[in-house]
Amino acid sequence: MAGNTFGEIFRLTTFGESHGAGIGGIIDGCPAGLLIDYDLIRKEMCRRKPGQSSVTTSRKEEDDFEILSGVFEGKSTGTPIAFLIRNLDYKPSDYDNVKNAFRPSHADYTYNAKYGLRDYRGGGRSSARETAARVLGGTIAKMLLLMEGVTINAFVSQIGKIKIEKKYSKLDLSLTEESIVRCPDSEVSDKMIQYIEEIKMAGDSTGGIVHCTISNPLTGLGEPVFDKLHADLGKAMLSINAVHGFDYGSGFESVTMKGSEHNDLFQKSKEGKIFTTTNNSGGIQGGISNGMDIYFRVAFKPVSTISKTQTTLNEKGEAIDLLVNGRHDPCVVPRAVPIVEAMAALVLADHYLRNRNSKLVNG
Amino acid sequence: MAGNTFGEIFRLTTFGESHGAGIGGIIDGCPAGLLIDYDLIRKEMCRRKPGQSSVTTSRKEEDDFEILSGVFEGKSTGTPIAFLIRNLDYKPSDYDNVKNAFRPSHADYTYNAKYGLRDYRGGGRSSARETAARVLGGTIAKMLLLMEGVTINAFVSQIGKIKIEKKYSKLDLSLTEESIVRCPDSEVSDKMIQYIEEIKMAGDSTGGIVHCTISNPLTGLGEPVFDKLHADLGKAMLSINAVHGFDYGSGFESVTMKGSEHNDLFQKSKEGKIFTTTNNSGGIQGGISNGMDIYFRVAFKPVSTISKTQTTLNEKGEAIDLLVNGRHDPCVVPRAVPIVEAMAALVLADHYLRNRNSKLVNG
Amino acid sequence: MAGNTFGEIFRLTTFGESHGAGIGGIIDGCPAGLLIDYDLIRKEMCRRKPGQSSVTTSRKEEDDFEILSGVFEGKSTGTPIAFLIRNLDYKPSDYDNVKNAFRPSHADYTYNAKYGLRDYRGGGRSSARETAARVLGGTIAKMLLLMEGVTINAFVSQIGKIKIEKKYSKLDLSLTEESIVRCPDSEVSDKMIQYIEEIKMAGDSTGGIVHCTISNPLTGLGEPVFDKLHADLGKAMLSINAVHGFDYGSGFESVTMKGSEHNDLFQKSKEGKIFTTTNNSGGIQGGISNGMDIYFRVAFKPVSTISKTQTTLNEKGEAIDLLVNGRHDPCVVPRAVPIVEAMAALVLADHYLRNRNSKLVNG
Amino acid sequence: MAGNTFGEIFRLTTFGESHGAGIGGIIDGCPAGLLIDYDLIRKEMCRRKPGQSSVTTSRKEEDDFEILSGVFEGKSTGTPIAFLIRNLDYKPSDYDNVKNAFRPSHADYTYNAKYGLRDYRGGGRSSARETAARVLGGTIAKMLLLMEGVTINAFVSQIGKIKIEKKYSKLDLSLTEESIVRCPDSEVSDKMIQYIEEIKMAGDSTGGIVHCTISNPLTGLGEPVFDKLHADLGKAMLSINAVHGFDYGSGFESVTMKGSEHNDLFQKSKEGKIFTTTNNSGGIQGGISNGMDIYFRVAFKPVSTISKTQTTLNEKGEAIDLLVNGRHDPCVVPRAVPIVEAMAALVLADHYLRNRNSKLVNG
Repeated sequence: MAGNTFGEIFRLTTFGESHGAGIGGIIDGCPAGLLIDYDLIRKEMCRRKPGQSSVTTSRKEEDDFEILSGVFEGKSTGTPIAFLIRNLDYKPSDYDNVKNAFRPSHADYTYNAKYGLRDYRGGGRSSARETAARVLGGTIAKMLLLMEGVTINAFVSQIGKIKIEKKYSKLDLSLTEESIVRCPDSEVSDKMIQYIEEIKMAGDSTGGIVHCTISNPLTGLGEPVFDKLHADLGKAMLSINAVHGFDYGSGFESVTMKGSEHNDLFQKSKEGKIFTTTNNSGGIQGGISNGMDIYFRVAFKPVSTISKTQTTLNEKGEAIDLLVNGRHDPCVVPRAVPIVEAMAALVLADHYLRNRNSKLVNG
Repeated sequence: MAGNTFGEIFRLTTFGESHGAGIGGIIDGCPAGLLIDYDLIRKEMCRRKPGQSSVTTSRKEEDDFEILSGVFEGKSTGTPIAFLIRNLDYKPSDYDNVKNAFRPSHADYTYNAKYGLRDYRGGGRSSARETAARVLGGTIAKMLLLMEGVTINAFVSQIGKIKIEKKYSKLDLSLTEESIVRCPDSEVSDKMIQYIEEIKMAGDSTGGIVHCTISNPLTGLGEPVFDKLHADLGKAMLSINAVHGFDYGSGFESVTMKGSEHNDLFQKSKEGKIFTTTNNSGGIQGGISNGMDIYFRVAFKPVSTISKTQTTLNEKGEAIDLLVNGRHDPCVVPRAVPIVEAMAALVLADHYLRNRNSKLVNG
Repeated sequence: MAGNTFGEIFRLTTFGESHGAGIGGIIDGCPAGLLIDYDLIRKEMCRRKPGQSSVTTSRKEEDDFEILSGVFEGKSTGTPIAFLIRNLDYKPSDYDNVKNAFRPSHADYTYNAKYGLRDYRGGGRSSARETAARVLGGTIAKMLLLMEGVTINAFVSQIGKIKIEKKYSKLDLSLTEESIVRCPDSEVSDKMIQYIEEIKMAGDSTGGIVHCTISNPLTGLGEPVFDKLHADLGKAMLSINAVHGFDYGSGFESVTMKGSEHNDLFQKSKEGKIFTTTNNSGGIQGGISNGMDIYFRVAFKPVSTISKTQTTLNEKGEAIDLLVNGRHDPCVVPRAVPIVEAMAALVLADHYLRNRNSKLVNG
Repeated sequence: MAGNTFGEIFRLTTFGESHGAGIGGIIDGCPAGLLIDYDLIRKEMCRRKPGQSSVTTSRKEEDDFEILSGVFEGKSTGTPIAFLIRNLDYKPSDYDNVKNAFRPSHADYTYNAKYGLRDYRGGGRSSARETAARVLGGTIAKMLLLMEGVTINAFVSQIGKIKIEKKYSKLDLSLTEESIVRCPDSEVSDKMIQYIEEIKMAGDSTGGIVHCTISNPLTGLGEPVFDKLHADLGKAMLSINAVHGFDYGSGFESVTMKGSEHNDLFQKSKEGKIFTTTNNSGGIQGGISNGMDIYFRVAFKPVSTISKTQTTLNEKGEAIDLLVNGRHDPCVVPRAVPIVEAMAALVLADHYLRNRNSKLVNG
């Protein structure tokens, strides 16, 4: 109800504020017997954490996690998997001047409107630190999907106006992690880095686009009416801080196409596998996966925290000039890549389990 | 679980296939005491139904509805409001040639993959006829929102490459219903109509974009983490047949903006009302409504049913040439306008009720 | 939220008032491929309907049902199964004198307190007619369970002070339906019938107990913490009109036993099947089925509608003498037998599907 | 789905095993602005903890808790309230001999059947230690209810065959906590203590009954069909370890009463308050609270762990003699009193919030 739970069968419930004791969550509904790969969790947490490169915030979050329950002798037991990530890097003085101010395009005003009060320290629950719990939960979902051969790869396709022009099928996604902006096209990556450095110098921020592909998806995932697979993916992505848009397959470009161009024709390979000659459907038809690659785009606005003085209101409704101190990201998009993957994994794992009940005999 | 329910407190559960006995639904969670406006339901159902103009399918669906429960002496009683819309215009012969075929970019193949069988008549549950139940349910949600002064207006902003270039704030939305394509800019409307006629003659189809604005929204609606207001709006829209993209506020355009351009500055009016000087946030900050207009775009792909022969597979996996007879829409976007509004109303009504529990004292 | 949905994966949502257009429901989550046995539905509906014998109300409800969706060529399709049972036997004059009165121990007063208004005709939503939708939904659940060899048998074990003294294992449950009070012990049955006739003559009513046994249950059903199998069975039973108590296995009698007497010892049969030498656990340990018979008791209070003048209040708060006309049951317990079975089937079918996701490899 | 969440709006999700890192939970949906009374939490945790008297287990659980989130400057913020209770008193050697054994009437066998593996240390998730998280969560629910004047008082009414014979209305409930068995009738309390001492000496265990009364309940709580207030109370109680039965109001005794005896007649007090002259309804009519006291009984079986040798099977299916070492309760019923209250508080708090949406204008 209060919206801190995601998923129906594979469910993640998260908690925590930026500057409280810690953040964390509970995964309920993970089947028993899954080998928990702690190294993979550490790796994914590192991809998200601040301070990993010159283009991100210098704020340090160690993100050491502890799994509190639900794992025994290295395997999931079928009971809730709870985890805790302590908050360490607490500098309350960083936030003194925002205590009574409504920062522009932040959640300060709306939290006050909704709750009558707010934990103003570092944005409280609205801080992007909350996404660490998503990454941890999503990594366990990834482990479940890997058992079925499903892999998820996201990368940065655009920062500001700088974008990959190549066909994505020509990209070598193994290069993504070699780029500090997680752009697998090294030339474009260099330009992006340069642009972010400029933005950072100017005390400003920029947005960008994350592209995500899910390979070897199972057929039959997704429910045909309200819980279409792409509807749940869309909700998952739009629930990430700073996301302003989502499209999948042919996306917004499809509106200028004709049906005769857009339709994906079915064929059968020599090996007997059914496929489509094009994939404008983005691997999803009628809300249900058809076995082709699923792909989608996620648009991030420029982050709201900038190092420039802005006029705004304080809690009394008085106009003030606000300069927010503290360390922040000029561009969160590179760090959003593992978050996008994690949310995609949560959606796929949940629909994988949901789909086990679509037929009478569950072969 | 099987995904035929939408909403948490104000919940719509729908049922029905294109060519079964009928379609309908149950609204559970409508507060008691709401005056049910049957004329408004009829009006909204008419806006969605096929055959309403030369640019839509000539297929007739009368969409007479019956409210079966939950209303007494004209008012909601707090118990479930069930409704039934009988299917009338049944021409089984229209669909004989699709019985064993997987129509390109339809849900035939994926339904079979998921369920092992399918009701092939008119697309069964995957037919857009299913959206009639959404419109009826959404209209009751609209009644609830009207009590709070919330109004929802959608219109067609683009068909193929033809789009409104004017600033939307200059449009007179009262003209929307005077256009058979529901475009309030009469010049653009004329071009759209001409384009759809061409597409229709060619036996082809086209996509488009619906723009939606929610005026005078309450503050505090939306939950801050997974159930952000725009995330639920996004899911709602992406769950509509043929939708391939969603963005809100500055949307995909935000990625090329700087934070200093994008941030919406708070000010206070002479009357003491807090507002923002720009509204790139689309009325939503941190997932919660701030009282400014909420607006978003919904991208529809060209419909898959076209009057051209296409190669595909049948259920045996054999290549076939398929020509689908029957009456269909060259462009569903004008008829999608009331569906977009209905889904928006369901999201807003649900979050309006959810928000009643955000504070201890519910003033 | 408003509580008209039961179950998590196999979900029944019901609607309808006693004297509106009809009652019905939607089953969402029934796996595709289930053969729908219409005769079984008719049979179960007949077991519940009024007017079936001299000991029940003479009010007639034909309970003709229509399945509106989700079934194609005799099988479930995986989409929602909606059904409608029209109301026919409408005598509004029967209820004129209760329009403004709060009938003792009915829901009139509490509905008004909760909703500010109520549909007073025949009790509206609070009428036991609502249970017809449970029986229909539960019968489809029974069909699913029968595929796995699970059978459910309830009978009347007590009416007023008259009860079966024999060990239940000595009863021939095939005799249950031969008794108009659904008591398989013919001597006790005769006494019960005589007692109900007396009560009926006196214009009074009586309560009783329904005993239910679920044979050959699968192991592993039930979730270990809040959704223990017996907790969900208990909720299901307590949600039936007039139920005031539930216990399972050794039940209330267990409180006087010692652990050493109560513990069920595990043994292995020659065929290699694990069983317990006693079954005080009622087939459920730690909330999860162990393969032994599940059994429980459901206590029904005497129905509130009696043919005697009672003092009460009207809506204005004035004391009045009330004599409720109309036809009613002196004892609903015999008609409750199929309702108890239906609710048990809903719980078991839901947990059967839920349990498919307990393990990683779903063998 | 996996059943570790309780409630719809005020929701508690719990985690943790007896001998893992700790147990805890997340409360989602607590309205903002609630003063969190840490002393009350400590007090309630102490009432549940082992080792509090000579009649309970000597095992120590300190139950120090930490609130990790959702509270700021002493008040709830509307975001999730997470809490953690570390496990301290870990003696793995206590449980070595049960590692491969199926203890009679425990959950060992059913966990294995369900999950294919289990955390055998101290019963893992099936340990009653799990209830500590319920008590903590329920205490926060109590704080919410206290704002509305609702109080909840449970006591032990029966241990083995020893029971309170007095009318409960004559009891002084302020004496409950003065009795180590939580029986407010001091004479009966003494007999209960003596009986438990005997049982303890014999290495055996006994069951009992907890009675609970909710005073000054609000009217209108409970949903009329599946989520009747007493149905949710019943489920809550039956979900507590070792509970085998539940009844409310006149309960199982009602079956022998006539309707004319059982009906509660409405009257109006001089002050204008509507009440009933009797309260066989237990404060609930049609599933909805009517403002009278709510009361119910909860039956606990004797705990399964006893200090006697029992024959059972090991995981290989071989017959073994099992003597479980370790410290255990001869009777858990006194310690169950705060658990019963906590679960009742969770149900009431949830329905209190749910009921805010029953009417259009929420006065």
